Amino acid sequence: MYKVAAMQLSDFRSVIDQYDVIFFDSYGVLRSYEGLVPGVERTFALLEEQGKEFFIITNDASRSPELLAASFQRQGLQAIQPQHIISSGMLAKEFLDLKVNDGIVAYLGTPNSAHYIDSSGLHTLPVSQLSDENMHRVNALVMLDDEGFDWFSDLNKAVNLLRHRTIPAIAANPDNSYPVNNHDVSIAVGALAHMIEKVVGKKFIRFGKPDSQIFMFAYEILQARRPINKRQILMIGDTLQTDILGGNKFGLDTMLVLTGNTQPRDAESRIIATGIVPTYICEAAVA
Amino acid sequence: MYKVAAMQLSDFRSVIDQYDVIFFDSYGVLRSYEGLVPGVERTFALLEEQGKEFFIITNDASRSPELLAASFQRQGLQAIQPQHIISSGMLAKEFLDLKVNDGIVAYLGTPNSAHYIDSSGLHTLPVSQLSDENMHRVNALVMLDDEGFDWFSDLNKAVNLLRHRTIPAIAANPDNSYPVNNHDVSIAVGALAHMIEKVVGKKFIRFGKPDSQIFMFAYEILQARRPINKRQILMIGDTLQTDILGGNKFGLDTMLVLTGNTQPRDAESRIIATGIVPTYICEAAVA
Amino acid sequence: MYKVAAMQLSDFRSVIDQYDVIFFDSYGVLRSYEGLVPGVERTFALLEEQGKEFFIITNDASRSPELLAASFQRQGLQAIQPQHIISSGMLAKEFLDLKVNDGIVAYLGTPNSAHYIDSSGLHTLPVSQLSDENMHRVNALVMLDDEGFDWFSDLNKAVNLLRHRTIPAIAANPDNSYPVNNHDVSIAVGALAHMIEKVVGKKFIRFGKPDSQIFMFAYEILQARRPINKRQILMIGDTLQTDILGGNKFGLDTMLVLTGNTQPRDAESRIIATGIVPTYICEAAVA
Amino acid sequence: MYKVAAMQLSDFRSVIDQYDVIFFDSYGVLRSYEGLVPGVERTFALLEEQGKEFFIITNDASRSPELLAASFQRQGLQAIQPQHIISSGMLAKEFLDLKVNDGIVAYLGTPNSAHYIDSSGLHTLPVSQLSDENMHRVNALVMLDDEGFDWFSDLNKAVNLLRHRTIPAIAANPDNSYPVNNHDVSIAVGALAHMIEKVVGKKFIRFGKPDSQIFMFAYEILQARRPINKRQILMIGDTLQTDILGGNKFGLDTMLVLTGNTQPRDAESRIIATGIVPTYICEAAVA
Repeated sequence: MYKVAAMQLSDFRSVIDQYDVIFFDSYGVLRSYEGLVPGVERTFALLEEQGKEFFIITNDASRSPELLAASFQRQGLQAIQPQHIISSGMLAKEFLDLKVNDGIVAYLGTPNSAHYIDSSGLHTLPVSQLSDENMHRVNALVMLDDEGFDWFSDLNKAVNLLRHRTIPAIAANPDNSYPVNNHDVSIAVGALAHMIEKVVGKKFIRFGKPDSQIFMFAYEILQARRPINKRQILMIGDTLQTDILGGNKFGLDTMLVLTGNTQPRDAESRIIATGIVPTYICEAAVA
Repeated sequence: MYKVAAMQLSDFRSVIDQYDVIFFDSYGVLRSYEGLVPGVERTFALLEEQGKEFFIITNDASRSPELLAASFQRQGLQAIQPQHIISSGMLAKEFLDLKVNDGIVAYLGTPNSAHYIDSSGLHTLPVSQLSDENMHRVNALVMLDDEGFDWFSDLNKAVNLLRHRTIPAIAANPDNSYPVNNHDVSIAVGALAHMIEKVVGKKFIRFGKPDSQIFMFAYEILQARRPINKRQILMIGDTLQTDILGGNKFGLDTMLVLTGNTQPRDAESRIIATGIVPTYICEAAVA
Repeated sequence: MYKVAAMQLSDFRSVIDQYDVIFFDSYGVLRSYEGLVPGVERTFALLEEQGKEFFIITNDASRSPELLAASFQRQGLQAIQPQHIISSGMLAKEFLDLKVNDGIVAYLGTPNSAHYIDSSGLHTLPVSQLSDENMHRVNALVMLDDEGFDWFSDLNKAVNLLRHRTIPAIAANPDNSYPVNNHDVSIAVGALAHMIEKVVGKKFIRFGKPDSQIFMFAYEILQARRPINKRQILMIGDTLQTDILGGNKFGLDTMLVLTGNTQPRDAESRIIATGIVPTYICEAAVA
Repeated sequence: MYKVAAMQLSDFRSVIDQYDVIFFDSYGVLRSYEGLVPGVERTFALLEEQGKEFFIITNDASRSPELLAASFQRQGLQAIQPQHIISSGMLAKEFLDLKVNDGIVAYLGTPNSAHYIDSSGLHTLPVSQLSDENMHRVNALVMLDDEGFDWFSDLNKAVNLLRHRTIPAIAANPDNSYPVNNHDVSIAVGALAHMIEKVVGKKFIRFGKPDSQIFMFAYEILQARRPINKRQILMIGDTLQTDILGGNKFGLDTMLVLTGNTQPRDAESRIIATGIVPTYICEAAVA
């Protein structure tokens, strides 16, 4: 429900106490380019102590849940296991499993990103290796990461692939940019997809927040275990347009934290400008 | 899976035989401005005979499932009961139930459309009755129907409501237009929402195809009854950008029928132009 | 040139002294819903005294230059004559004169707005009077004003006209909204055109700021009189996206005044957010 | 005027006879990736014989008029001199001359493209050489060509430049793509600019067709020589959205030729789909 009138900070622990399941965004909430958000380990200790379930809901298609969990563990968050992670890349993989039964899946991204979309019957091929000989067997294009390929040559190849083949194009991460340090950002897969759409006049299928499908993925896992109600779940994120809008739309209560994309000085004006209102605002996801 | 190479018509009955559950779009598939699509009753007789489940998945927020089912029955489709209908309006209602706990919900639409979004604790008010006295208590704006209000006066009122109040704005039907006869269309709620977005710089929350949430709504009902897999479900629609794209993205096999928005002469060129490929193409949803 | 570093107010008179010709926006610069901007008469007295030329460059297609000048005079600005006024409506009229030689021009707007686009050989007809009998003779659609027609019935008629006829569609005012009092706005022709574009998938031809054509119209009149250079002209406006962007792009020095769309408290943040930088900022166009 | 009812081919020479001045698009009209359009030399011989003036109006900012003319001459079109060429790059240069008086102009493009925007007082610097030391002196960003820089590193640098500096960003060519052979295209500067806009939320200033400013540039040159009327000028192009739309909007009669972007089999359906109607359609600009 919409409780925030003006900008009013809530106490993180008091809010958490009202919910049974917590969905966390990853980047900007649990960690940043500097490492873990200080104190966030205490939050997971509290969740364990109280027997609360949690998921990490992330627009990241660059690595498998196993690799994502391993990187959290290396940073000191032992509580996060692969099964806690729901990534937009997993939805892209499910789509390919269900909808593209044979032929080649051409991809833009690193080998790590390609590895985990491998499916029985499907052959993954970096766009750089597309040729007149294999193009007719390509049945999908997937953008997984903004790294791992030559932008000039491979984005042009991707454009011409979509002009010649009537196949689904998937952006496995809808974000337009991500922070690389405290004053610069990097262009992300979502923005590259926008550019290709402008050129070819076809739309990418986008997986990831704010779209409901990623929330549903976690929700179904919960439901398979026990009866659950959307009112029992809280979504915590640092970005109004993805985490908060997506959580709100799916029917969840939402918490904006100020450790990432939304700075304390901007929070109120951005909420008013966008009309995207979190149920709560907290300084950090730290108990 | 993507089986369609060039434009190749499939036999409706042979396709149906491969699935356990059928999702139908309504307008353009089961009926049009002229009444029922001829022969469509036989399809529902077949489904009943074979014990197959079905849902009507419709971007219609103008009436309750009860009124929608009643209108099918009046036209001769006795098989369609309220519980078969999943409308974008039901998602808007769920959103209001979960996210807007008190105050006024201002709406654009007919009294019929407003009636069924009534929720305990919420007061619905047509935008025409907004005033300086009640505006501060409005906690959501919902666009339900393109009829039932004065466009000039009430669209301007809706614009100023969103400029003054930081509240969610919901388009309970994302379609931009709908056919009113065999050569004219009417501007629909989705296009009105686009116009308001241009003026106020805020985004509406849109419920309905191609967004996954409406498919999930039906899928969850199915799962609550028995184990089900997305491969067992077929989505049938007449519109590439909503029915087919949405079904594909959710992971369902899809069938395009040529009795509505997509005419036989345009089907192939539109599939190529958009890159949205149905699993099958059939003349009509008629067994 | 871009002289504004941070937000720094200039003295109006000192700025004016550096230019030979002044282009003024109308609404928000010379007058508002409350009448003339106080003191603006002194500015025109100064221009006359110094023998400087001026034009009013306005996105207004609702009335002829004669009627616009008369309304300035009624408000007390005697200096403004019809020949000082360059309106987006005049460009629409020139387009019709040059490009649509016969048949009917269907319009949305008041009779006043239609009157002055009348051209020899062309018959203007309100969209409300379109019928199956005359539609085949319509050779252009022009949106002149947001008033003077029934939105529901006539916007739908305009949509179907553009679906059936391959003709130019003209938005004679690109603005999306205009202020009606100190806290409300009204939807303008530009936003109505956006909505129709969404439905029919065709683009309107837009005349008016920020497009260069309206500045060129004034510039050509000046050049016909005497040699003139863009460096001698200053454009004064209250709106970054139309007046300042358009003036900058045309190569003119620009002045933002804070008596209209851009409030003193927002000016700096909007300049930074949009990247549209006026050469000068002044409180008001008042000497 | 709009004379084309259905798709009806006109005789090139008969059309040309009705006009005093001809504006030609370059790529797709005079030449292609295969060299000159066969027979186009005869057109220029005819123009010379009849004493008709002409201009080449091109969305090309990659080379100076001198280099463009030299490349026509190498291909055998001796008639084309630098003074016949009006390029979008010349408008970008004029903008920089008038609006950016000092500091650095950062550019994306080849050294050839940068050379001719050099202006007294302005220092041009490739984006690759931007650093923390010189960024504060950058007063404009100009995209001139899609070649000559590293896309990954320099597009990201351009994004962060625009996030940190409140300066004009110029796309000196609005085209989204250009053909590189008879079945592939290459992403052009316009599409790169769209991507950057998505990331930074600011708009580029675009020079080139269909914007009127480039037509005006040629028109002013003509007017400086002798009295001229828009009715005496014909614009010839191969692209509806740039050449024909831009010519129409500026008030010129227009001719679509079928030797470039618009193929004979697509011409009619694209005209109907876009509503952009040329005055004439001819097979080629060949007398």
